Amino acid sequence: MFKIDDNKCYKMPVHFTGYDFDPAATFYRDVVSITYTCTTDGDRLAAYLPEGFELLRPEMLIGYAQNRECDWLAGASYNLIYVSVPARFQGQRDRVEGGYILVMWENKTHPILGGREETGIPKIPADIEDLHKIQQNYFTNASYEGNTFLRLELLGAQPVDAPTLAEMKPQLAERVLLGWRYIPKVGGPGADLSQPIFYPQSSETKSAWIGKGTVQWTVPTWQQNPLQCGIIKALAELPIIDMAPAVMVQSVDMLKPSQGRVLK
Amino acid sequence: MFKIDDNKCYKMPVHFTGYDFDPAATFYRDVVSITYTCTTDGDRLAAYLPEGFELLRPEMLIGYAQNRECDWLAGASYNLIYVSVPARFQGQRDRVEGGYILVMWENKTHPILGGREETGIPKIPADIEDLHKIQQNYFTNASYEGNTFLRLELLGAQPVDAPTLAEMKPQLAERVLLGWRYIPKVGGPGADLSQPIFYPQSSETKSAWIGKGTVQWTVPTWQQNPLQCGIIKALAELPIIDMAPAVMVQSVDMLKPSQGRVLK
Amino acid sequence: MFKIDDNKCYKMPVHFTGYDFDPAATFYRDVVSITYTCTTDGDRLAAYLPEGFELLRPEMLIGYAQNRECDWLAGASYNLIYVSVPARFQGQRDRVEGGYILVMWENKTHPILGGREETGIPKIPADIEDLHKIQQNYFTNASYEGNTFLRLELLGAQPVDAPTLAEMKPQLAERVLLGWRYIPKVGGPGADLSQPIFYPQSSETKSAWIGKGTVQWTVPTWQQNPLQCGIIKALAELPIIDMAPAVMVQSVDMLKPSQGRVLK
Amino acid sequence: MFKIDDNKCYKMPVHFTGYDFDPAATFYRDVVSITYTCTTDGDRLAAYLPEGFELLRPEMLIGYAQNRECDWLAGASYNLIYVSVPARFQGQRDRVEGGYILVMWENKTHPILGGREETGIPKIPADIEDLHKIQQNYFTNASYEGNTFLRLELLGAQPVDAPTLAEMKPQLAERVLLGWRYIPKVGGPGADLSQPIFYPQSSETKSAWIGKGTVQWTVPTWQQNPLQCGIIKALAELPIIDMAPAVMVQSVDMLKPSQGRVLK
Repeated sequence: MFKIDDNKCYKMPVHFTGYDFDPAATFYRDVVSITYTCTTDGDRLAAYLPEGFELLRPEMLIGYAQNRECDWLAGASYNLIYVSVPARFQGQRDRVEGGYILVMWENKTHPILGGREETGIPKIPADIEDLHKIQQNYFTNASYEGNTFLRLELLGAQPVDAPTLAEMKPQLAERVLLGWRYIPKVGGPGADLSQPIFYPQSSETKSAWIGKGTVQWTVPTWQQNPLQCGIIKALAELPIIDMAPAVMVQSVDMLKPSQGRVLK
Repeated sequence: MFKIDDNKCYKMPVHFTGYDFDPAATFYRDVVSITYTCTTDGDRLAAYLPEGFELLRPEMLIGYAQNRECDWLAGASYNLIYVSVPARFQGQRDRVEGGYILVMWENKTHPILGGREETGIPKIPADIEDLHKIQQNYFTNASYEGNTFLRLELLGAQPVDAPTLAEMKPQLAERVLLGWRYIPKVGGPGADLSQPIFYPQSSETKSAWIGKGTVQWTVPTWQQNPLQCGIIKALAELPIIDMAPAVMVQSVDMLKPSQGRVLK
Repeated sequence: MFKIDDNKCYKMPVHFTGYDFDPAATFYRDVVSITYTCTTDGDRLAAYLPEGFELLRPEMLIGYAQNRECDWLAGASYNLIYVSVPARFQGQRDRVEGGYILVMWENKTHPILGGREETGIPKIPADIEDLHKIQQNYFTNASYEGNTFLRLELLGAQPVDAPTLAEMKPQLAERVLLGWRYIPKVGGPGADLSQPIFYPQSSETKSAWIGKGTVQWTVPTWQQNPLQCGIIKALAELPIIDMAPAVMVQSVDMLKPSQGRVLK
Repeated sequence: MFKIDDNKCYKMPVHFTGYDFDPAATFYRDVVSITYTCTTDGDRLAAYLPEGFELLRPEMLIGYAQNRECDWLAGASYNLIYVSVPARFQGQRDRVEGGYILVMWENKTHPILGGREETGIPKIPADIEDLHKIQQNYFTNASYEGNTFLRLELLGAQPVDAPTLAEMKPQLAERVLLGWRYIPKVGGPGADLSQPIFYPQSSETKSAWIGKGTVQWTVPTWQQNPLQCGIIKALAELPIIDMAPAVMVQSVDMLKPSQGRVLK
């Protein structure tokens, strides 16, 4: 008989083995990320924030990351695209600010599973291209079963000067992801778990570039992307009133899911 | 502000919308599955069954399914491979028999997410080939990032005769999957949910074949498959004392996650 | 030393071995194909026909095939999409009619290599989805590195009646592909081989359906698809003046590259 | 009517357009390559060299390259693995030395087509992983339809010192690939083109590392890899009598297919 030990950690399937809780961060040793900061309609954005969260600015971040040399994946790579909004959680006990994740697409399944089950990040699958680079222009796209739904470009990227980089480093050193973990009741409506989550990460910035960013959504039909068409439609309908210059960063990232916690 | 309605169903991300509970089955209209029934060491097998389950026979099923025309995926396809053991759950309230799923690999992420979060089936990702067919021989394999870990063959498949098919149909009409849903505590050892799950499915058998089955595991190193090497090693070490003829079935399957329930 | 035998057949790499010439057809035992017949501008179409070919009708066929149980691939599968025009080759020796292939996309490389080098079919790579099926509607798409460039649909497919099927069978039994094999001079402009090719295939039709067809091109930029953007743009610019009902066929196909020949 | 211009360059499909001959090199701006130098049986190796070539040393190179920022692919990436032998071509006119390519696997089709048709490099398809990196260990593998056939590792890679790097740079600056272009007769045994090819490339080395290399072949059956099993078997049977330390190089490469030529 297999006995689950409450002092151990497990992932499904549980019955082969558990492992010791490890509070250490896991390293992503070669990350290139691009962030698009868009001013949008604050009221529409706020409508997506669950109870306990409030919007800090009428702003939507669209981020791309090309994660390489990921320690927990034995040095493998994967890409992700997320949409987040700057938010504050104000609960009975906690008051924290961070990026509330509206959605995160990833092109590898194991990080999707861990993100959803362990830290409430609403990760879903997509094909996401590595960066294509022509001169100082960078291109990528996201698609699902051959249907493109997002194209991201960074044009004319220029390295930031040394003082700017020095200023950016501490700003990018710590970040907070805010999620909502929801695990449904088996066989019925309603939830077994429905809770706001705090998930901290660190980042050591090595280099940075700034350029012109472009974001282009293509809304799929239900036939093209039945489980994501509503999400993409909702995001594509958020007006982009203004777009700040896009920022590309090369960094070493430290993820700390073991320092995550349920917010109260 | 987004409000979660307890009478609705949600998947992460929750904040875009919920949907009404629907007790109906979802159809997989073109399924070809192959089942390999192996006699193995009952003691070693029983060691993987969590509290509440007992082994019915010293038997391990290895199953492959090529699922096509899946309604909830807008008619898309995916493949899976599972290992299960015949088990009985005997609880304070429930007494049910079914196939306790030791692991299920799937080559599409959305079914993996639903299976884990909604019915406790321990699904993990792999590349799984469609069936290759040469004369009456069928071949497939599972790999992870280019590392083959399982090859399945069905050789000399012959259609079963009409009386045998008639006999098989009711036997295959209803099946029970038994899982263990485990959702960890955020940021620490131990579980927020840890529970046995009952998940019923129906199947309408159209045709069946019998042939010689072969199963060949290749155990990866941690470097090749860091998150699955232990699972594969455990399964590959189960001795195959005897292998019954492999059975291939073409069917229409009806999955009923909404009729799943937590066992007590 | 490796010696090439002029009585043998070789593919690159040559130096491992040759094989005997085999005049037999190779079987594709489970093919589902959909054909879209579009009336277009004959003058523009004729501009793509090389010397020696003449256009038979101002018509463009767009065809999809899901090829399964391919004998020479050890029973593996692949998908293709082609655009062809009805043409007559009138040379000094030969006078033949067939479908001149403007382009053929395939999602497997080995058939692309054989098609180009052995029979002059201008095959190029793309990701091409298996058919998704919802009720009597069929969907597929072609993309390149995440950029969708073609979506094909067949809506409301109905089986043809028995007399129609009986009439179709002999019409579909034999088909001629016409290609232009062009192998450049090494290191310079101009050709080492530039020649019209005749390539016969047979097909045994099992079932057929008719429905409403839709064809939707999305023209990529050079950044999205640098080696194919011009091809797709040229095809997308051909007006679809009229579209006949789309025809879907399930068949066993016999390819006869060894009966191909250079036209003169 | 489409007319082919002898002063232009074409690739199949020819009828959409030609382009001007361009003698310039095309840049691969971020290449990481690993070379494994193996002493093997010279007689067996020489048996694979076509007439006109002689073996310089009983040595087989197995090379991996992770090609990124490839200009002609609009900045996209691909990976390759090749096996070559040091050879001299001695003809009536030409006497050149270089690496005769026994086979080259690539995970992108367009470079395969160009390599075969324009420079006689015997490229064939495979899935080839990007490098996985754990500390100073690098891993990759090649597989075909889920069947692993080659695993390459570089363990304990250490940067070479500055004098060694300075010495390596000129040695790696120019390299010659030798191929055999073979285009069969349509519909019959024998060749329309069968010729030795010279293909020069340049490389600007940026950094270099040395470590322990391991090479592990897994020979597939015909059912697993019908078009490549013979090639892999032949290579796997070449004994590895000695293996020099493996060398990893980061470089900018310049390919010059337009400076290729047929050897005589």
